[in-house]
Amino acid sequence: MTFTEQHERRIPQRTIPRLSHYYRALLESREVQLISSETIAELTGYTAAQVRRDLAYFGQFGTPGRGYSVEDLKKVLLQILGIDHQWNVALIGMGNLGLALLRYRGFHEQGFNIIAGFDNDPRKVGQMIEGVKVHQMDELAEYAKRDQIRMAVVTVPASAAQAVVDQLVGVGVKAILNFAPVRLQVPGGVKIHNIDLAIELERLSFLAIHK
Amino acid sequence: MTFTEQHERRIPQRTIPRLSHYYRALLESREVQLISSETIAELTGYTAAQVRRDLAYFGQFGTPGRGYSVEDLKKVLLQILGIDHQWNVALIGMGNLGLALLRYRGFHEQGFNIIAGFDNDPRKVGQMIEGVKVHQMDELAEYAKRDQIRMAVVTVPASAAQAVVDQLVGVGVKAILNFAPVRLQVPGGVKIHNIDLAIELERLSFLAIHK
Repeated sequence: MTFTEQHERRIPQRTIPRLSHYYRALLESREVQLISSETIAELTGYTAAQVRRDLAYFGQFGTPGRGYSVEDLKKVLLQILGIDHQWNVALIGMGNLGLALLRYRGFHEQGFNIIAGFDNDPRKVGQMIEGVKVHQMDELAEYAKRDQIRMAVVTVPASAAQAVVDQLVGVGVKAILNFAPVRLQVPGGVKIHNIDLAIELERLSFLAIHK
Repeated sequence: MTFTEQHERRIPQRTIPRLSHYYRALLESREVQLISSETIAELTGYTAAQVRRDLAYFGQFGTPGRGYSVEDLKKVLLQILGIDHQWNVALIGMGNLGLALLRYRGFHEQGFNIIAGFDNDPRKVGQMIEGVKVHQMDELAEYAKRDQIRMAVVTVPASAAQAVVDQLVGVGVKAILNFAPVRLQVPGGVKIHNIDLAIELERLSFLAIHK
């Protein structure tokens, strides 16, 4: 049971976070052998038709009228989302947001293992926070190599973010979650996903005023 | 210069955060009278065609070949995004993430005014943090009424989130930005926008493994 590259190419962006929700529904559900699209829909708040459409992108692994194999579906979703293995993650910027992310248990549960923290504040360097050691930025190359760090979360101020991202790219990081409210340049082959909190509030504001 | 409800209905979800970026581009740009879709595209990283398509949802306010009036476009974008007035915002949960959001200057700059903090930890209640007083949750109704709070940001643990959201709805809050990794129920007329940080990392992981 696997999925093909061919299927994968047509996946709309908005399907991806729904896959994460479906995976969580499988973990929550009491079904052990088969699960219907209706049950997944009920647990996630999407429609059964949406569930079927999203999962159809990845090939045939449901039996019409009977449902999906829970075990197969779990395995395929983990594989699709790239969380069938651990990611070693560097956290850059140990301010309040950095600390909040470090204490956020959800990351570790999903296979995102924050393995090292980096900050240039001498009061923070050398500290051990939630079991994670804080290093100076100029030690990044050393630890990225030693711990095979391929993912990073960036919570530094906007003015410092591009320099940090350049350093990350330089040491082989391939995936960056950026919270700095600024547009950053990365070369092809490196993926960056931005969360701009003010823009998220504006989206909410838009939804609230447009019934 | 305004936009009509009729136009607004067809707006795709993904257009909304782009509007936020266009607005930022107008603030950044040196153009004072007219700005072309090409300049907006250059400043935001979208294509000029995308810019024109997105702005066309809100009516005719560009002149073909000449560009958009900077002043009109700013005004319309503020209005569309619902940030042509201040929002008084309550912050529920004063842990690390709450503190990070409180210190985040981008909110205030865009008209989101965090006016009160709430937490049930007796060590936090009564404190003044970044100019914002921390209250007990049972004082919510009082302050929501006094300060006309219609928006809230929720950073409490998943297990407490539904009870908090019920309280917020009860005191007239209409828009909630939720960081608790749990699906919450709100009645019609109340908008909730969820940011689940583990799901954002999974989206990044997906992007990183699928070239």
